[in-house]
Amino acid sequence: MDATHEHSPGTPAETVGALGELAVLDRVTRRLPPGSPLLGPGDDCAVVAAPDGRFVVTTDMMVHGPDFRWAWSSPEDVGWKAAATNLSDVAAMGAAPSGLVVAIAAPQETPVTVLEGIADGFRLAIEALAPGIGVVGGDLSTSATFSLTVTAFGDLGGRAPVVRSGARPGDVLAVSGELGPAARGLARLFRDGVDDAGEPDAGRVRANGADADPDVARQRRPVPPVTDGPLAAAAGATAMLDLSDGLAIDAGRLARASGVTLELDVEPALDPVALHGGEDHGLLATFPAGAGLPGGFRRIGLVRARVADDDHGGDRGHGVDLVRGGEPVPTTGWDPYADWDGAAG
Amino acid sequence: MDATHEHSPGTPAETVGALGELAVLDRVTRRLPPGSPLLGPGDDCAVVAAPDGRFVVTTDMMVHGPDFRWAWSSPEDVGWKAAATNLSDVAAMGAAPSGLVVAIAAPQETPVTVLEGIADGFRLAIEALAPGIGVVGGDLSTSATFSLTVTAFGDLGGRAPVVRSGARPGDVLAVSGELGPAARGLARLFRDGVDDAGEPDAGRVRANGADADPDVARQRRPVPPVTDGPLAAAAGATAMLDLSDGLAIDAGRLARASGVTLELDVEPALDPVALHGGEDHGLLATFPAGAGLPGGFRRIGLVRARVADDDHGGDRGHGVDLVRGGEPVPTTGWDPYADWDGAAG
Repeated sequence: MDATHEHSPGTPAETVGALGELAVLDRVTRRLPPGSPLLGPGDDCAVVAAPDGRFVVTTDMMVHGPDFRWAWSSPEDVGWKAAATNLSDVAAMGAAPSGLVVAIAAPQETPVTVLEGIADGFRLAIEALAPGIGVVGGDLSTSATFSLTVTAFGDLGGRAPVVRSGARPGDVLAVSGELGPAARGLARLFRDGVDDAGEPDAGRVRANGADADPDVARQRRPVPPVTDGPLAAAAGATAMLDLSDGLAIDAGRLARASGVTLELDVEPALDPVALHGGEDHGLLATFPAGAGLPGGFRRIGLVRARVADDDHGGDRGHGVDLVRGGEPVPTTGWDPYADWDGAAG
Repeated sequence: MDATHEHSPGTPAETVGALGELAVLDRVTRRLPPGSPLLGPGDDCAVVAAPDGRFVVTTDMMVHGPDFRWAWSSPEDVGWKAAATNLSDVAAMGAAPSGLVVAIAAPQETPVTVLEGIADGFRLAIEALAPGIGVVGGDLSTSATFSLTVTAFGDLGGRAPVVRSGARPGDVLAVSGELGPAARGLARLFRDGVDDAGEPDAGRVRANGADADPDVARQRRPVPPVTDGPLAAAAGATAMLDLSDGLAIDAGRLARASGVTLELDVEPALDPVALHGGEDHGLLATFPAGAGLPGGFRRIGLVRARVADDDHGGDRGHGVDLVRGGEPVPTTGWDPYADWDGAAG
């Protein structure tokens, strides 16, 4: 990788194709945290403990183009984000992460250092967000398009899973984690990280100082409040989900699943990016009135009986999802990738 | 899909890009078997039972090009194979499958009927190989290259996992499932399923009668002996693995992991395709001498103390993996894809 394209996987060196699958796997797996599964890699399956007789599971794929760009994210960033987003889904059930498996498809010309960097990102994210768990298995394939698929597991610790559909009128609406920085970081990259043709450009990112922007850091490496998931469950959370697409969109999902209307507090006011920006991977949860809010949760509103949309002139047939100061709040997000074709960068 | 390219995903109709993720997921998920997880799709995670406090897990990615071609496999074939190969890995631990999650990356122009066909393939494979389990979660992404990543789970039923490293001198070497048809089917497709430039061609497959070849059917839809996995564990199998790359390669893995030499019986002789052809996904296992062989297992040899390679002039520093009639058998496979670039077809 040269100085102007630090994150590009296009430089020769030792490539995936030249080294072969086994040699690459050997170099990658030694950088991954093994955790302490009952049985780790090396057989047809790993064996993972499920102490209470159940496990939660989520799977999520990140594809180069729509989900990340080498010009904007280092391999470490990509590994971190793939781990963090899945750990957040586990936390959103009220579960503690218990392990991950990772499948990667890489073009033959990918330098092995890219895969090592991704492994480092997984290790760093796990150390920061779910210390002690391991990457217990994986697969490496070849493809013209780089992608990662992570499947993460978690342990409910004997509690019921916290689903989206359990919010009840009178509950407190609360959020944990950051709101907005990941979206602001992406906006900064779109503004200061593209060449004259509008394509992602690592040199422009650096020249314009965006590498030093803490919001860009959060877009690259979101920090979901993973430990707050089990804390919320233990505190009696009635509903919870991961804020992947933005507070407004995800609040709409919770409201519809629970058959309630969520009312945001008028003060303190959430700014539009906090309300509609995605990818922070905070947790949105509802708690019984009077319950103490655990960990990093703070109140942002309350749960009301479902409001019919005639009252507010909404365009939905099934009621209003989200209101503030008596007015409906659109449950939409903001997707700066929407008009991109995903081919370049 | 027109008559000459029945399996091509290139025809317009309703595409993934035009319909959008949610509409596609709705059409796909209704064709998938739900099984009976403790909690199914719709939340951030599914919840799956792990009755004995553990679960086995495997993940495997199939990429268009290196792993399948639309010109040679229907969407139903691809879904079947993705399910079957993962179920076989679960069985190879001695576990009974308990669920799957599936992540699919599809180009925007993919007709939704392709994804519906894949879902049908999953359903059919599960009905045939592991009835009652469900596809409990998934993800749908967009990518220039079509790929599927399946993660499968299984239940050990209170038994120890059957690993590769447990074979002991004196054990019987046995196999369950077919040996050779998948490789013969692939050879048939390479011979009778390509155009004049050597590219996969669905019209040639049909014109040359290869669609009616039972070996081609096995290449497209392998039938691993999934129920024989738990039967082997219950019968005391000391080591086991899935025959994905061919009996000789996989026997070598078992021999090295166990620190033994595997001796194939001289009669009945295995033909070269049975020995070196891959993708049948049978089970190779070792059993204590005198144990009854369960299900479809039949004896093919026995386990000997590790033979030093000086005795046989082998090129390995660590002993001989596989012998027959006193002569080493190369632990190599046969990969007709090896020289392909994976771009076309």
